[in-house]
Amino acid sequence: MRGDTPFIAGDWGTSNLRLWLCGADGTVLDRAEGPGVAAVPGRVDAAFLDVTAAWRAAHGPLPALFCGMVGSTIGWVEAAYHPCPAHVGSLASGLTRFTAAGADMAIIPGLSTRNPQGAPDVMRGEETQILGALARRPDLGSGRRLLCLPGTHAKWALLQEGSVVTFQTGFSGELFALLRGHSVLGRGTEGMQPQTGPAFIRGVQRSLTGAPLPHLLFETRSRQLLEGLSPQDALSFLSGLVIGADMAGGVAMAGGDLDGPVTLVASPALTDAYAAALAVAGHAAVGLDGGELALAGLLAVRAATLS
Amino acid sequence: MRGDTPFIAGDWGTSNLRLWLCGADGTVLDRAEGPGVAAVPGRVDAAFLDVTAAWRAAHGPLPALFCGMVGSTIGWVEAAYHPCPAHVGSLASGLTRFTAAGADMAIIPGLSTRNPQGAPDVMRGEETQILGALARRPDLGSGRRLLCLPGTHAKWALLQEGSVVTFQTGFSGELFALLRGHSVLGRGTEGMQPQTGPAFIRGVQRSLTGAPLPHLLFETRSRQLLEGLSPQDALSFLSGLVIGADMAGGVAMAGGDLDGPVTLVASPALTDAYAAALAVAGHAAVGLDGGELALAGLLAVRAATLS
Repeated sequence: MRGDTPFIAGDWGTSNLRLWLCGADGTVLDRAEGPGVAAVPGRVDAAFLDVTAAWRAAHGPLPALFCGMVGSTIGWVEAAYHPCPAHVGSLASGLTRFTAAGADMAIIPGLSTRNPQGAPDVMRGEETQILGALARRPDLGSGRRLLCLPGTHAKWALLQEGSVVTFQTGFSGELFALLRGHSVLGRGTEGMQPQTGPAFIRGVQRSLTGAPLPHLLFETRSRQLLEGLSPQDALSFLSGLVIGADMAGGVAMAGGDLDGPVTLVASPALTDAYAAALAVAGHAAVGLDGGELALAGLLAVRAATLS
Repeated sequence: MRGDTPFIAGDWGTSNLRLWLCGADGTVLDRAEGPGVAAVPGRVDAAFLDVTAAWRAAHGPLPALFCGMVGSTIGWVEAAYHPCPAHVGSLASGLTRFTAAGADMAIIPGLSTRNPQGAPDVMRGEETQILGALARRPDLGSGRRLLCLPGTHAKWALLQEGSVVTFQTGFSGELFALLRGHSVLGRGTEGMQPQTGPAFIRGVQRSLTGAPLPHLLFETRSRQLLEGLSPQDALSFLSGLVIGADMAGGVAMAGGDLDGPVTLVASPALTDAYAAALAVAGHAAVGLDGGELALAGLLAVRAATLS
């Protein structure tokens, strides 16, 4: 990728495509959105050319740099996972490159690791958000830091001097959505949102007893039947159980001796919930808005390819 | 309930009604099936009279003894939970009685407890199956015994000299069904059944590491992406994770010093899976077919009301 022309930065996940048209210096000139890769199977390339037609008509061939599921087996071109440790330089060196519409395309690889529990683990897209966090918060690049990116599949990443040393995934967002939407535990909670008050805190505390989650989950029901727990409080309790278990796993992965608070990269509602859960276990946390961190990470990788 | 007339024994759950017409000595004269209480809201009584019309025409008013969700808030008449400890005599003394169609009706109460994890817990229907197991296997009535009734909500019951001392519920069957049917973890496993081979055993072993379940669950996915785990083996691994966690919770509840093997009351497929999981943790198990245990329990309670 040359440093003297406009280019496209793209965060292309399973469900959404976000594109930024950037000047040579990284200034955002325009934005566009499009379908996630899962919505355009077998025609990912056509979808990209369609969304960027006007930009290319105005500027000619535009190189592009992507992150996310666009590099998976259901994406455009597969970008093999980069094993940890990984930093901005190693990811910039490990780009998967190809040509489309007369321009250079590149995809940032996802990360793989064998996590501290001895299991394989993967991320794809979050590595670029982590690079964005490092770009926006340079203090995270020194010492031993724990970042959490809550969501459908929460990613807990351990950083040492700006490198992702290892990470671990919690199946927590999808699990909670299943339980509240499809199980007896979520009955009567339609339209409600979990709160971080006493019922949530109690759920976190219960999760920290170490009792297996299948047994703790049923408490959501039995406390309604025997203790008059309201559906709203049951929903918050359930959220506390799931987020508490996720948090316990993430903190255990980091293994102590952390510098600074845990950094939470998420929407304010999720940041509040994870910060409340971490507080129960005695850990401080700070939030970092995940909004355009992917763009910041994409720009950091581009800068690394030029240096 | 008099001891010299025919009567009806009924196991009436959320999804199914099973009725037995019994002679005064408990001999089964006829069987019938009907809708679960959830299918006949507000007209549980009419559903009963409908299904039993021919029997009543032949025999006149027939007393009936029920167990199950027929005693819940969505049932016929609410039967308050009986707190543990409980045995056949205390349950027979705690029947909820009423009259319908000119005959005496009675419902066996469900059980409540504060389980060893310090949480409230409930069962409704399984207490009668436990009494049936005690009737069929008198050896279970002496010493300290652990029974497990796997299913949608698995019940682990600790028996001391024939009394249910306490119990604990694992949300395991419903959790597994959700994960395989509605989550990314079950993708590509339609029509398959979990097996108890090496992938299942590995899942049980992973669950015994004590790592939080949300993190272990995601291994089902990452092992497919990085280690080539097949969908069939992923399904078995997932089953091992859930059953292993359930088993660990149940065994922990019992607290050691058990007499004899763990007794598993279930279908052969579930018995095999739980026995395999228990073996990983060094516990012996024997299966007891759950088929007509509810009838055996209903007959035991009736006998206790007559003595």
